[in-house]
Amino acid sequence: MTEFELIEKYFRRPASRAVLGGGDDCALVQIPATQNLAVTTDMLVEGRHFFAGADPYRLGWECLAVNLSDLAAMGATPRYFTLSFALPKADAAWLEPFSCGLFALADRHGVEIIGGDTTAGPLTISIAAMGEVPPLKALKRSGARVGDEVWVSHEIGGAALRLYACWGKTTIPEAHAEALKLRMEMPEPRIALGEFLRDFAHAAIDISDGLCGDMAHILRASNVGAQIHLSAIPVPNSLHEKLLGVEREMAVKLTLSGGDDYELCFTAPPSAHGAIAAKLAALGLRGGVIGHIVAEPGLQAFDERGVALSLPQSFDHFRG
Amino acid sequence: MTEFELIEKYFRRPASRAVLGGGDDCALVQIPATQNLAVTTDMLVEGRHFFAGADPYRLGWECLAVNLSDLAAMGATPRYFTLSFALPKADAAWLEPFSCGLFALADRHGVEIIGGDTTAGPLTISIAAMGEVPPLKALKRSGARVGDEVWVSHEIGGAALRLYACWGKTTIPEAHAEALKLRMEMPEPRIALGEFLRDFAHAAIDISDGLCGDMAHILRASNVGAQIHLSAIPVPNSLHEKLLGVEREMAVKLTLSGGDDYELCFTAPPSAHGAIAAKLAALGLRGGVIGHIVAEPGLQAFDERGVALSLPQSFDHFRG
Repeated sequence: MTEFELIEKYFRRPASRAVLGGGDDCALVQIPATQNLAVTTDMLVEGRHFFAGADPYRLGWECLAVNLSDLAAMGATPRYFTLSFALPKADAAWLEPFSCGLFALADRHGVEIIGGDTTAGPLTISIAAMGEVPPLKALKRSGARVGDEVWVSHEIGGAALRLYACWGKTTIPEAHAEALKLRMEMPEPRIALGEFLRDFAHAAIDISDGLCGDMAHILRASNVGAQIHLSAIPVPNSLHEKLLGVEREMAVKLTLSGGDDYELCFTAPPSAHGAIAAKLAALGLRGGVIGHIVAEPGLQAFDERGVALSLPQSFDHFRG
Repeated sequence: MTEFELIEKYFRRPASRAVLGGGDDCALVQIPATQNLAVTTDMLVEGRHFFAGADPYRLGWECLAVNLSDLAAMGATPRYFTLSFALPKADAAWLEPFSCGLFALADRHGVEIIGGDTTAGPLTISIAAMGEVPPLKALKRSGARVGDEVWVSHEIGGAALRLYACWGKTTIPEAHAEALKLRMEMPEPRIALGEFLRDFAHAAIDISDGLCGDMAHILRASNVGAQIHLSAIPVPNSLHEKLLGVEREMAVKLTLSGGDDYELCFTAPPSAHGAIAAKLAALGLRGGVIGHIVAEPGLQAFDERGVALSLPQSFDHFRG
C-alpha cells in the first residue's frame, strides 16, 4: 500500500465542519469571530509513552485523548485535529484498529481530522488539536487566587499504579487490573467539565506529569502557593488500600506524582463550590477539593495527621 | 537540562500576535472573521528526510520551510506554528543552532511559535503550521481548468541532483555543489508568490514529491489532464548540462520526479500570463510555463523532439 492509499483508506474523512478537509496542501476552517482558537500539540513515542506492541486501538484513542485533555484544561470545545505519524511499515492489521480507536474518541467529542502526514520511521505519533473558547473565558494556569479551593476532577494515581505493576514493582488484585489498564490506556478527556468550568474556575491544568508537578505550573504562573491534603485526594480503591498498607511510601508517591491520568486540577472560589460539586456528581466523577490556594509561594502537602510530606520530583522525559 | 528548561531556553518566545503564546495547556489566537484558517502538518524523520548528523541550523530551517511551503501553495499568509519533536538527548550544542535556523525562517515570514512538545526518542520533528487566507481565494488543487497554462515557480530537480551526488550516483562540479546543497537543505517557501497568485491562479501545489507526482494530484482533483514539455522545465545549470550529456536518462528522471525543491506548480488562465511573468521576475525567480491543461485525463510529457516520455513513479515513503 502506498502512503497515499494508506491515508485515503484509514484516515481520510469527508469534511463536515471544515471548509476544506484533508487531501489538499492545507485544510481550511472558519473560526467564528466570537471565539478564540485554542491550539495544542503532543507527541507520543514508542518505548517512551507506550510499550512496543501496545494495543493499536487503545493507542489511537490515547494519542488523541492527551491532546483533547489539553483543550479541556483550557475550557475549549474541541473542533479539529491533524495527525502526523512515523511507523515502521504500512501494516493494515495495525492501522485499521489504530484508526478505529482514534475516531471512536474523535466522534464522541465531534472533533474532525483535517490533515496529516505519514512516513516510514520509528513509531511516533504527533497530533495538533484545535478548539474554540470564548475570549476571556479560557482557563489559564495564571488565574489562581488566594482563597481558591483546589480541585481534582476524579481519581488520580491509577495509571501510575498500573505502570508500576507492569514494571513488577507492585501487584494489583485481578479485579482492579483491567480497570486501571483502561485508565492508563484510554484516558477520558474531561471536555464537558472544562466547558462548564469556564464560568466558575480561575485556573486549570490537566494532570499529565503528576499532581505536584502540574500544580506547580499553576502556582508559578499565578504567583501563589497551595496547601493540599493527602487524605482528600481521590484515588482508586486499589491505590487507597496501598496507602493504608506496607506499600504506603510508594502509594504516596504515586498519588502525588503519578502521571498519565489526564484528570483536571483546577482552582475556583469557595462560592462556586456547590455548583462544581453538583456538576462533578452529574458527570459521574469522584473529584473533590484537595486543598486551597495561599499567598506564600510553593506547594505543601500534609498527611492524615497534618504532618508535611516531602514532595517528589515530577517526571522528566530526559531524566525519567 | 529538564524538558521544561529546554523548552524555556530555546523555544519560548513572548506572544506577539497570539492572544496567549506557549507555556499553558493551549495557546490562544484570534482569527479574523474575514479569513479562513489554513492548517497543514509535516513530519521529518532522521535517516528518512535528512541524514543522521545533518546540520541542525539547516534542519531547523527546513522543517519549518516544508510546512510554510504548503501554506504558500494554498495562497495563505503564515501566522503560527507548533513544534513537536523527539530527540535522543537534550543537547545544547544541537538545540541552539536548530532553534536559530528555525527562527531565522520564522522571523523572515513573521510566523510565531505558539506551542510544542519535546520528548526523548529517535530524532523526529513534527510541525503544524497555520495561516490566513480570504475565503474563496485559497488555491486548491481542484481548480485547474482546460486551457490553463501550467507554471513552475523556479528551477526544480536541484535538490534531487544533490541527493544523487550524496549517494555517489553522480558527481556535481564543485562550483555548483554548495548552491544545490542549500536548495536541498534550506528551501525557500514561496510565500509572496502564493499570496500574489490568490488573484490569478486556479490551482496550486508545492512540489515536494516530484513534479509529475505532485501535478498528478492537481489533475486528479480537477478531473483534467496536462501536457508538459521537458525543454520548458526550468532546471539548475548543473542539471541542464546532464540533460545534454551521457547522464541524460538520470537527468530526465530527476527533472520530472525529483522531490524536495518546494517550488510551486500552479495553473492559471493565459490572460494572467503577463502579470505572473512580471511577478516571477520581480521576485527573482526563474519560473515559467511548462505546458497546459487539457480535457483528456492523465499527464503527458514530451521531449525536445515532441516524443512522449515515459513517466517515472513519484517517491513513496513506504517504498522509496
